[in-house]
Amino acid sequence: MKFTVDRAVLLKALAHVQSVVERRNTIPILANVMLAAQDGTLTLTATDMEIAIVEAVPDVTVARAGRTTAPAATLYEIVRKLPDGAKVELDHAGGDAPLALRAGRFATSLMVLPVEDFPSMTEGKLPHSFVITPAMLRELVDRTKFAISTEETRYYLNGIYIHATEMEGQKVLRAVATDGHRLARVEEPLPEGAEGMPGVIVPRKTVNEIRKLADETSEPVEVKLSDTKIRFAFGGVHLTSKLIDGTFPEYERVIPRGNDKIMTVDKRAFAEAVARVAAISSERSRPVKLSLKPDSLTLTASSPDQGQAEEELDNGAVSYSANPLEIGFQARYLADITDQISDKVEFRFADGAAPTVVVDASKPQALYVLMPMRV
Amino acid sequence: MKFTVDRAVLLKALAHVQSVVERRNTIPILANVMLAAQDGTLTLTATDMEIAIVEAVPDVTVARAGRTTAPAATLYEIVRKLPDGAKVELDHAGGDAPLALRAGRFATSLMVLPVEDFPSMTEGKLPHSFVITPAMLRELVDRTKFAISTEETRYYLNGIYIHATEMEGQKVLRAVATDGHRLARVEEPLPEGAEGMPGVIVPRKTVNEIRKLADETSEPVEVKLSDTKIRFAFGGVHLTSKLIDGTFPEYERVIPRGNDKIMTVDKRAFAEAVARVAAISSERSRPVKLSLKPDSLTLTASSPDQGQAEEELDNGAVSYSANPLEIGFQARYLADITDQISDKVEFRFADGAAPTVVVDASKPQALYVLMPMRV
Repeated sequence: MKFTVDRAVLLKALAHVQSVVERRNTIPILANVMLAAQDGTLTLTATDMEIAIVEAVPDVTVARAGRTTAPAATLYEIVRKLPDGAKVELDHAGGDAPLALRAGRFATSLMVLPVEDFPSMTEGKLPHSFVITPAMLRELVDRTKFAISTEETRYYLNGIYIHATEMEGQKVLRAVATDGHRLARVEEPLPEGAEGMPGVIVPRKTVNEIRKLADETSEPVEVKLSDTKIRFAFGGVHLTSKLIDGTFPEYERVIPRGNDKIMTVDKRAFAEAVARVAAISSERSRPVKLSLKPDSLTLTASSPDQGQAEEELDNGAVSYSANPLEIGFQARYLADITDQISDKVEFRFADGAAPTVVVDASKPQALYVLMPMRV
Repeated sequence: MKFTVDRAVLLKALAHVQSVVERRNTIPILANVMLAAQDGTLTLTATDMEIAIVEAVPDVTVARAGRTTAPAATLYEIVRKLPDGAKVELDHAGGDAPLALRAGRFATSLMVLPVEDFPSMTEGKLPHSFVITPAMLRELVDRTKFAISTEETRYYLNGIYIHATEMEGQKVLRAVATDGHRLARVEEPLPEGAEGMPGVIVPRKTVNEIRKLADETSEPVEVKLSDTKIRFAFGGVHLTSKLIDGTFPEYERVIPRGNDKIMTVDKRAFAEAVARVAAISSERSRPVKLSLKPDSLTLTASSPDQGQAEEELDNGAVSYSANPLEIGFQARYLADITDQISDKVEFRFADGAAPTVVVDASKPQALYVLMPMRV
């Protein structure tokens, strides 16, 4: 294998694939990226056995077709440090010979491992297929990702549950995540072809990788999936991931239906007030208490060592007309939700001890459930 | 005590003083800042018992003079989260009463501790006194700080040694730091009044604090010191620090005098080549080998797992006319030195096993000694 490629083009592809490689792994070949050059195209592949990423780089000058694998992180670091505008030549004589990289007066030879040992996880049929815009994909991820559970024992909550369903007569693609303390649910119009898809749990690492890739493209993203795998195609970058093999809980049962005490509050005023009163305590799990009266909200927090803090929001920022109510929430959980909301936040309370529903007033398809804390 | 102050003014002063407060300390009052308001001036004081910082804030509307102490980190976090442009009122009724802070509709009451318990370490005479520009102070710190030892057992190396001496008939103020592997020495013209000063070892934390303060001013900095304490006055901010009570080694003995193999190299070309060849190994302590021939320098590095890398610099970037030489250095140590040099680096070698002298060709008063590694 021998080819020449622009440093900037190679760097971008290596940045994508090395991101999937696990820094600490016990199987040496999983630290490597597979490079295959043929017909003017370089294909890079990396995997951690849960995710495989394959990127095709066109416009490569291939002098001799071939394949090998080399350390992904080292190759990335070296290419990153080459001067901008450099032409990079990669040359592999075959077999155990090292991979030679040359750029100007810099030369390196990297240890290789045989391509035959490089695991493949991209086979298998993916019968369901649809196309989604990067903006819709970002919305599904951003509105729910923060609620993904990090508890390994509840592995079926370690991802975003994506499924096709109906909402008020509309067919929707819905994303849900929960860690037991809060739940996030968001919907987008169901893309054509997604109707018969199974509900799938996309693991957190996959969510993070596709989120980064969604930022780099404005072209539609092709999604293909089966019961066990999902593939996202961002132009020349294909990411295939295993799905979490588990059953997502029947989350609809934890979304209260009858909450009838409605408060609408300006997002920015609310979020800033929460941050200010919460600053009284360095303990992350301390609650902020919300005390509601008609068109008035008072936020309070206290710390046994430091003191207490309060801020009042009135009818410039708050609208509330039900009975007075007191309820406490973790400040960080409130911030995670308001971070996703741009303008007006609608709280739907039952009482001070019951799960509360929060929606984005300008996008009611983005719905959150938050468990209160005793205050 | 009761006063009103602009949020921005209070925030800037709190940022300075809370930086000195140790996050983890067992003496509660050391987590507090002392606030004293009188005659239109607010004075803030914080200390960790090694450093004390006192900042005077003018143009404060004092309604009732007085003093108290309150948690520094919490107060800083709260003021940081107040809206830009806010007027902040602080009100302390005296004694154990909490400190009330009000800004708009936000209010907090912070626990206080008695001012009588707040330790003072700013007494004592400081008989030596001189004035230095912030630029000179930055130069003394930046050229040497990286070489400060972190080994606690060699406490007398845990700072920068500053003393008055002569260099080639010129009176100079000299800063030196070493960790046993490398040494950094830099000089500035001796300021008036510094002639009789004792040699002092300024602790690392103090170095870091004064370096930050030096960035915020263009006014001359007043330095006062005794055998045991040093004080830096940056306008209204006074930082007093204990000095390290130890004897700095006779560093002149480790600076080789007879090194006669001189290489001059372009800083940028050299630093980038070092970074590229060192990228072959993730072990920080692996050496980069320098192989010199007339007007040619080849850098090589290798890793048993990854492979090897080399880059050649030729007479466009390198000038060398002595006998061929091979010598190895830790890549990070080379980078620490070249980071301080803007243009041309001059290496003075004896042989492949002896300490090497490095100077900034455009500022020969900045001198470094580097121990080689076996390659």
